[in-house]
Amino acid sequence: MTYEDAPALAASVQQPDGVPERLHQQIDFILEVDRLKTIVRRSPLLSADRRENDAEHSWHLALMTLVLAEYADEPVDVSKTLALVLVHDLVEIYAGDTFLYDTTGAADQEEREQRAARRLFAMLPADQHSRFRALWDEFEARKTPEARFAKAMDRLQPLLLNFANKGGTWRTPGVTDADVRARKSVIGDASAPLWEYAQKVIDMGAANGWVARQKHAE
Amino acid sequence: MTYEDAPALAASVQQPDGVPERLHQQIDFILEVDRLKTIVRRSPLLSADRRENDAEHSWHLALMTLVLAEYADEPVDVSKTLALVLVHDLVEIYAGDTFLYDTTGAADQEEREQRAARRLFAMLPADQHSRFRALWDEFEARKTPEARFAKAMDRLQPLLLNFANKGGTWRTPGVTDADVRARKSVIGDASAPLWEYAQKVIDMGAANGWVARQKHAE
Repeated sequence: MTYEDAPALAASVQQPDGVPERLHQQIDFILEVDRLKTIVRRSPLLSADRRENDAEHSWHLALMTLVLAEYADEPVDVSKTLALVLVHDLVEIYAGDTFLYDTTGAADQEEREQRAARRLFAMLPADQHSRFRALWDEFEARKTPEARFAKAMDRLQPLLLNFANKGGTWRTPGVTDADVRARKSVIGDASAPLWEYAQKVIDMGAANGWVARQKHAE
Repeated sequence: MTYEDAPALAASVQQPDGVPERLHQQIDFILEVDRLKTIVRRSPLLSADRRENDAEHSWHLALMTLVLAEYADEPVDVSKTLALVLVHDLVEIYAGDTFLYDTTGAADQEEREQRAARRLFAMLPADQHSRFRALWDEFEARKTPEARFAKAMDRLQPLLLNFANKGGTWRTPGVTDADVRARKSVIGDASAPLWEYAQKVIDMGAANGWVARQKHAE
């Protein structure tokens, strides 16, 4: 599910007369991002028998940031980190969710997301267009402590859901514990204690048969 | 749907050996709040034919805060405001969502929410228990500029969804434009321009027949 070829939601909503242009643009953007609630991810919820959507996921990352920021190896600006996780998945409204272990989808992911970012953030007034675009670029580049920590939350959250669900997407055919470890290692770029915890979780998952063990060449 | 009588989700999740007590408590809390994704509100989405849940709603408020903070009548600390909206509905995991126009449910709402807050925040380490509890109390008390702005977001967001849906919960039998105006007036405690916009939206809804007009006594 993506809205790549769909007109903006605001196109079907007539606003009252006399709304200032700047506020009108902002309201149109706020309506458009309602679509994030319908972009379904692979991760299962723990609390219900369905998959998670991007809006729920983004909220969960923000709450995790409030709880876990103390584990960042380098000091992080929590406010900036919150903005990064709240905004990081917005481009999926037009680009769709790319599954972490889908190497085919990953091939053109960057191009699709760049196109989506150009379209979505241009709905905002120019100054906010720049600011939101910069937040998304910062998250993607992972060159600041805040972006590294935001990315760690983004990788830790589905790990917790999969683990608590005794497998979840770890059971996808072809995925092994070595794949999980490789994809999750960015947690270690932000937080030694959280990476240590994540590795314990992956080890326990492999020991319990919730994720296949990588076979070693003889 | 509430989890008032259900054991914590973490009770069914065995953690790996050797996880520090503090982190263990934090992870248990992060798993428990997954339940917010299943607390369904009355408001319809704009992007799909279903109602919104509390996690999606909380994310939307946070994003609106990033976009609309400039309209606050008094300067607000955006970071604090984000924390308030991210945390404000957590108690509904155990207390349930009380519909804005449900005067019966409102009667014991405070008692149910107080009980829920005591249970939920106690899952966290003591310092974070105090901090999260204080955030929730601050939101409820509406005595700081941040709490007033967070509350304004909480009232403006469903207004936008109802309006864009040409009625939504405004069509609930017995609800009139005067009720909507009365319940939404707290927006004006935080932002004159957003309250001006909200009133235009309510007027247009009444003019279009999306909400019943209050009958005046002769």
